[in-house]
Amino acid sequence: MAFLYNAWYVAAFSKEVTAQSPFSRMLLDRPVVLYRDGSGAAVALDDRCPHRFAPLSRGRVVDGALECPYHGLRFASTGKCIFNPHGDGRIPSAAGVRRYPTRERYGAIWIWPGNPELADAVPLREFGFLEPEQYFTGEGYLLTGANYQLSADNLLDLSHFQYLHPNTLGSDTLARGTLQSSDDGEKVWVCRQASAELLQPFVAQGFGVSPGKRADRELHVRWEPPGLLTVMVRVRETDAPPETTRVGMSAHWLTPETESSTHYFFALGLPREMGEEGRTLVQSSVEGLMAPFRDEDLPMLEAQQRAIGTRDFWAMAPVMLSIDAGAIRSRRIMERLIASDGAAFDTDLSGVLRGVAGRPDREVGP
Amino acid sequence: MAFLYNAWYVAAFSKEVTAQSPFSRMLLDRPVVLYRDGSGAAVALDDRCPHRFAPLSRGRVVDGALECPYHGLRFASTGKCIFNPHGDGRIPSAAGVRRYPTRERYGAIWIWPGNPELADAVPLREFGFLEPEQYFTGEGYLLTGANYQLSADNLLDLSHFQYLHPNTLGSDTLARGTLQSSDDGEKVWVCRQASAELLQPFVAQGFGVSPGKRADRELHVRWEPPGLLTVMVRVRETDAPPETTRVGMSAHWLTPETESSTHYFFALGLPREMGEEGRTLVQSSVEGLMAPFRDEDLPMLEAQQRAIGTRDFWAMAPVMLSIDAGAIRSRRIMERLIASDGAAFDTDLSGVLRGVAGRPDREVGP
Amino acid sequence: MAFLYNAWYVAAFSKEVTAQSPFSRMLLDRPVVLYRDGSGAAVALDDRCPHRFAPLSRGRVVDGALECPYHGLRFASTGKCIFNPHGDGRIPSAAGVRRYPTRERYGAIWIWPGNPELADAVPLREFGFLEPEQYFTGEGYLLTGANYQLSADNLLDLSHFQYLHPNTLGSDTLARGTLQSSDDGEKVWVCRQASAELLQPFVAQGFGVSPGKRADRELHVRWEPPGLLTVMVRVRETDAPPETTRVGMSAHWLTPETESSTHYFFALGLPREMGEEGRTLVQSSVEGLMAPFRDEDLPMLEAQQRAIGTRDFWAMAPVMLSIDAGAIRSRRIMERLIASDGAAFDTDLSGVLRGVAGRPDREVGP
Repeated sequence: MAFLYNAWYVAAFSKEVTAQSPFSRMLLDRPVVLYRDGSGAAVALDDRCPHRFAPLSRGRVVDGALECPYHGLRFASTGKCIFNPHGDGRIPSAAGVRRYPTRERYGAIWIWPGNPELADAVPLREFGFLEPEQYFTGEGYLLTGANYQLSADNLLDLSHFQYLHPNTLGSDTLARGTLQSSDDGEKVWVCRQASAELLQPFVAQGFGVSPGKRADRELHVRWEPPGLLTVMVRVRETDAPPETTRVGMSAHWLTPETESSTHYFFALGLPREMGEEGRTLVQSSVEGLMAPFRDEDLPMLEAQQRAIGTRDFWAMAPVMLSIDAGAIRSRRIMERLIASDGAAFDTDLSGVLRGVAGRPDREVGP
Repeated sequence: MAFLYNAWYVAAFSKEVTAQSPFSRMLLDRPVVLYRDGSGAAVALDDRCPHRFAPLSRGRVVDGALECPYHGLRFASTGKCIFNPHGDGRIPSAAGVRRYPTRERYGAIWIWPGNPELADAVPLREFGFLEPEQYFTGEGYLLTGANYQLSADNLLDLSHFQYLHPNTLGSDTLARGTLQSSDDGEKVWVCRQASAELLQPFVAQGFGVSPGKRADRELHVRWEPPGLLTVMVRVRETDAPPETTRVGMSAHWLTPETESSTHYFFALGLPREMGEEGRTLVQSSVEGLMAPFRDEDLPMLEAQQRAIGTRDFWAMAPVMLSIDAGAIRSRRIMERLIASDGAAFDTDLSGVLRGVAGRPDREVGP
Repeated sequence: MAFLYNAWYVAAFSKEVTAQSPFSRMLLDRPVVLYRDGSGAAVALDDRCPHRFAPLSRGRVVDGALECPYHGLRFASTGKCIFNPHGDGRIPSAAGVRRYPTRERYGAIWIWPGNPELADAVPLREFGFLEPEQYFTGEGYLLTGANYQLSADNLLDLSHFQYLHPNTLGSDTLARGTLQSSDDGEKVWVCRQASAELLQPFVAQGFGVSPGKRADRELHVRWEPPGLLTVMVRVRETDAPPETTRVGMSAHWLTPETESSTHYFFALGLPREMGEEGRTLVQSSVEGLMAPFRDEDLPMLEAQQRAIGTRDFWAMAPVMLSIDAGAIRSRRIMERLIASDGAAFDTDLSGVLRGVAGRPDREVGP
């Protein structure tokens, strides 16, 4: 299986990356170091010194440059080596590390692992409900030992609520609710609706449904490549007027660590106009949702991955149900995008630099 | 190396499998789920939902059917999917899991991993001394990180008692005793005899030999494919009349977990006519024997496996001694049986179901 | 990557090997058992019984022979099987284990993994400062999860002191000092010199430099195949007369455990004529040096190994700096020696014994 390289991925939450301590994360099977330069801008470089392959993330930031912890070479935020403390200080022409285009928005740092020349023209996906000016936001993170597409399948088919999360998110009514999916060749939408549902207390409370009252719930899931999902939940007490509907929005960003593990970034936003109640609700919702994600979804995803092993998903001949329509749409779109991702350049560092192999730099001596 | 598929293997002790909690065990490299249906009969199915490969053993038993923990498909004890809670409830024709023939006897649940049509005609091996009506029985289990044939070698050559178990089972006299082996092309017998042996206290006590008295001991080992051994120990004080001989019978059932790990099931039986002494002796014997099995045999078997790694046993060019005759007989029989085991069907789930790969069921759709 | 087999390697410190308890160590990817025979001479044999591959190191030494812990075969210090306790006691001609030539000197047991006929003619390398008659010696050991050549690179380029060991061994002055390297096609010398250096307290104290005083420091490193390094440190206070120079000598012996792990033996010697101060200084120096080796070098070497994985070092296209000259010289010499190491015999036990595979010894039988 291949990755889609020419795309924006979430590399980290903004708060994870500082100007002081370089931060290391494996992304799409490559070690990446993240830090902030003098202006506070996020920098993403290969986390591997080209000299002796030391992890640069164990070094320190000196005047906005990253210093290798082994022999002190320094790299600018462009990836170029700008200081060699040894000998006559000459800097070999091959001494540089790959720099990845980055952007910062929605409380996250985004990285472009593909051809850097293509990055500028591609906008980020929209997650307006995470703009901190207008919204209270909360965040959660899980490292999942399963392919990112299994996580996308999970989110694109919320019929599992009743089976995997019966005590927090599910209900028998929801499991039997109506289901629709569609796509425009690039995005996928799935909508699940249930009427007169008896919600679990955690959900009822979050959406202001009185104890014992029945409610109508809609779950709208939007998937965008390479693994960026938005879930909109709309809830109102059954027979209450439409204007009493309360809406919850969450983002679910999936970034492959390797082919069989995924960084799962979860973020939730509520309008600041809700005041203190919104601020509190964001926090309790993140905590309440992370529990089933961590204790129920994650073990299931990892069990699926173990069952699949290194095999191709389709070679396992999965039985298809109506509930899989959204997930299959997204898998087909990803397969098409990966097949046409020819512009992705060689992903192996050694390939990029192989030109100089066997030709020791002139600086070597005596 | 291949397994022998058309054969009865022990999957579990009877007490391990209940009607409430599905039980998961890897057998011959395949995940199997065991539970009991409404009638109490043991059921063995592939522990992998054909929809998204969730382990069914994490689900629950509902009206004698097994419910998938992820999306709620239910499977009858035949392996057939009988309930789809989603959409119009139609059940795709490919929605089923492999069901393994099972039998229950001698305190164990037996499974037939090969062609199910051949199972009925093949009787279980005889272990009459484990019939609970006439015998007190006791059981022990160890998961051993070594190929099952190394465990069979170990049991077919009890000359190791003196070296590996000098303080519990061995004696110098036994090591020098006489040894005979034979086979009929399908079973192997090994007999080791020692005269006027000074037994270790644990053995002397178990067979009623007075402290300090010498005894004659016979160890009869019977091996049957695929790895079912019976050990009969006969002991009497030297020069005592034959009718004072006491006999201990034990079963040693080896079921491959993988090519390099083995489920070792140990069971022991004493006639109920012995009364309370028999009941107590069974228990103390199991405890007394499991200690050297776990602390001395298991580490040795695992060290052998590490030394062999993924290589073929014969490619290691083992030096042959007279004591190996029984083990070699059993290895030769297994090699012949495996070679003629053509009727074993494809052991890979994906192969079985590949017919439907790439052909999404009609049920799929928005 | 291949190993150089026809060479003397350190297998263990002398104190690690006794006449009572066989000692097991993986050397150049082979399990080796070390013990002392009746005369106290060190014996090195393959740690694998040719009968059923039990680790002989778990057996016991009986009359200077090593007894297999599984079935009691005994092996003389020549590797020849001299006792079979079973049946008629005949010893199969193939029953022997490989014996490795050994020597004992400088507080270490040396082993020759290559063609034994070539061993006698090859002298050990010289480490005169570890002769216990004239020197107080101290020793340290680390198992490092990295290829031995990465450790050699580390020692041949002490410019890393300032970056990896800033608080114990390094200084900015040393990093900027002069550097020279040379080789004679078989040994490599690297010399790093610094003047008017402000030493870290640990170094200053060890070499008798008064607090606050500046000093001139020379670091002479000698590398000999296959991975035997001598470090001579010469220090005197700046402008003090030459005869006040104090000298510290240490040995750094690298023996591959596998291609990606290394036994690192460290030894230090100071002249006995220094009296009690020398004895104390040896001990405190070993402790003081092992701390940065273990806490700073080892994690870096292991991070390098993880970055390289199973790839060839040169295929990674490392950027070359002036400081790498010594390391590259040693790598080139090793590559030449390994290429001409044709006399190394087959390193796979099964290959050596394959002659008898499939031909069960006549002793086999009921």
